[in-house]
Amino acid sequence: MRTQVGIVGAGPAGLLLAQMLAQRGIESVVIEAKSRAHVEGRIRAGLLEQGSVETLTEAGVAERLHREGLVHHGLALRFAGRETRIDLSGLTGGKVVTIYGQQEAVKDMIAARLAAGLPLLFDCADVAVHDIATNRPRITFVQDGAAREIACDVIAGCDGFHGICRAAIPPADLAIFDRIYPFAWLGILARSRPMSEELIYARHADGFALATMRSQAISRLYLQCAPDEDLSLWSDDRIWDALRKRLGAAAGELQEGPILQRGVTAMRSFVAEPMRHGRLFLAGDAAHIVPPTGAKGMNLAIADVRVLVRALEAFFAGRGEGLMDSYSATCLDRVWKVQRFSWWMTQLLHRYDGDDAFEERVRLAELDYLAGSAAGRTTLAENYVGLPYAA
Amino acid sequence: MRTQVGIVGAGPAGLLLAQMLAQRGIESVVIEAKSRAHVEGRIRAGLLEQGSVETLTEAGVAERLHREGLVHHGLALRFAGRETRIDLSGLTGGKVVTIYGQQEAVKDMIAARLAAGLPLLFDCADVAVHDIATNRPRITFVQDGAAREIACDVIAGCDGFHGICRAAIPPADLAIFDRIYPFAWLGILARSRPMSEELIYARHADGFALATMRSQAISRLYLQCAPDEDLSLWSDDRIWDALRKRLGAAAGELQEGPILQRGVTAMRSFVAEPMRHGRLFLAGDAAHIVPPTGAKGMNLAIADVRVLVRALEAFFAGRGEGLMDSYSATCLDRVWKVQRFSWWMTQLLHRYDGDDAFEERVRLAELDYLAGSAAGRTTLAENYVGLPYAA
Repeated sequence: MRTQVGIVGAGPAGLLLAQMLAQRGIESVVIEAKSRAHVEGRIRAGLLEQGSVETLTEAGVAERLHREGLVHHGLALRFAGRETRIDLSGLTGGKVVTIYGQQEAVKDMIAARLAAGLPLLFDCADVAVHDIATNRPRITFVQDGAAREIACDVIAGCDGFHGICRAAIPPADLAIFDRIYPFAWLGILARSRPMSEELIYARHADGFALATMRSQAISRLYLQCAPDEDLSLWSDDRIWDALRKRLGAAAGELQEGPILQRGVTAMRSFVAEPMRHGRLFLAGDAAHIVPPTGAKGMNLAIADVRVLVRALEAFFAGRGEGLMDSYSATCLDRVWKVQRFSWWMTQLLHRYDGDDAFEERVRLAELDYLAGSAAGRTTLAENYVGLPYAA
Repeated sequence: MRTQVGIVGAGPAGLLLAQMLAQRGIESVVIEAKSRAHVEGRIRAGLLEQGSVETLTEAGVAERLHREGLVHHGLALRFAGRETRIDLSGLTGGKVVTIYGQQEAVKDMIAARLAAGLPLLFDCADVAVHDIATNRPRITFVQDGAAREIACDVIAGCDGFHGICRAAIPPADLAIFDRIYPFAWLGILARSRPMSEELIYARHADGFALATMRSQAISRLYLQCAPDEDLSLWSDDRIWDALRKRLGAAAGELQEGPILQRGVTAMRSFVAEPMRHGRLFLAGDAAHIVPPTGAKGMNLAIADVRVLVRALEAFFAGRGEGLMDSYSATCLDRVWKVQRFSWWMTQLLHRYDGDDAFEERVRLAELDYLAGSAAGRTTLAENYVGLPYAA
């Protein structure tokens, strides 16, 4: 079997890449280790930058997103008993963010791919990439018990942080930047009316909390917790009590409801450089992880894919490898700005155990400064709705 | 002897307070432990915010400042081989900063005080404050071998970080916030044409450097060094070589000249809360220290004095103690924002030994973000020219 672009991983990066390549007449095969049900059921981030929505729209996979997505024009910061609204639209010339579960975007792109009759292979075992430093890289895997091989011009590693693609690059050729945070998020999905029309980010002496939503009837709520937090110690009542306290919820503001799902999300900042090795191009979580505070994971994957599509389009049109050569640097420019923003939001809003009192006050002073400065609020807003893409 | 306001310390805070009180018909006596020559010779910061210049102008002590001060409309950030100009005026609706040595402002205010024939006592030994928690606090000291005492309504502690006023407050009544940085500044004053019309702040792999000036013929230049740096290891050549390298000076850009003075400045962030104990009010360095990176020390002292003058004016006019009661909170609101800014400028531009690679990249990404974002540059500019005073 032979294709132009072998794509490892059917997450948002791999599926969007396949879709955008197909629009441009470039063949690809998507190889996924897990089942379709597994991929469609993975609960992940759910907030799309303005540019991400535009990209999905141009890719022709945003029909349901536009119908069901919840458009947000602002968010609230709560700290020290106060609330400051960040007027995302007013501060960015009208830009918005849209709440739409990552797994919903994944379902839409899988449906589009299959409807077009284009190759998307689930349940592939023992996926491996070979000869990535040559012009004829290969992907091997086992499907239905049979060993298969795809010869490619280019391989896209869209298989996430724990995937096999980054691991196939010789360690000596990668620089790794890694930061593990001393806390995690306890997240719940609950059948209850969202606390507010907009997201509420709260800094509290007990720790961070975030109130967001999946729909008008499903709340998504988070609490800062220990990385090794024992969920069995968190009764529903304890969770709701902590949320109410940390979010500074007025009477009746936080509606309770059945908790549909609960879990602990680790917090990490990670970058592997460069994002290309020979004919293997990494995109999305395969190359970088951000802590969820800035809601950037899927957006960064989409930004990578935009750059990769342009590079591959030029390459297959015979316009040379220039954009492939600059792929990593172009992506990393945005990746580091987004890492900076995600780190900043994280350290601003979380409680650090053993924090010195000076830093604690500095963080409160920064929130106080943001509350009083249009420029300060604009820095948050313009990063949150998404910095402009590279020209 | 008796006065309304006993002022301990003839630095910028004490002298400006005395001047502004005199304008309002409020009596004061300024007590200074050191000699006039010593006070006038102390080289300190030399950059005034827009509001500081306005305050000194309103106080009637800015005639020479307006004649000799160097008005700056912008500054430059150099990093990673690039330069970004921060258009201070363009980003803040026309505000500027003014270079004018702190000791020059001190000379002007001493001259004004003495010309008016108002009490300003130098060379006072064994200065002490008493009964500060009562309505009749006292200052005792020894002058020309004779013990003296001044009964006051209020005492202003303007005697700096190492002064006796803060030390007179029971430790249990003060909260101390303290951060010692793992580096210092090696500063020189040189007879040479300044490198640029505007300040240059440089981040370099070898450490921070800053090119500023005292006049069109005197350069003031700084290099990040160790807190216990041995100056004897720094020949003139080594200093100029390091400056040229870290500042990224083009050929001929950095003019060398005789080094008139050299020294090592420690870097510290410090706040004591509250800034008032009974009838003792702390102002300036007596209450807080900032690292010099944001050039805020004297400006923060001036801001404190403005608040204190208003409080004392109300008090002596029989309008009660309300503004005295809110003095500390009003000052600390600005103090913490300025501490945040000074800490931010410091950590953004200095090399931290043993820094992890992730943080290093985050700092470069922040500089890169500032270079590309008007909102980001505005946050720097509006803090640098000075945040608005409390209403």
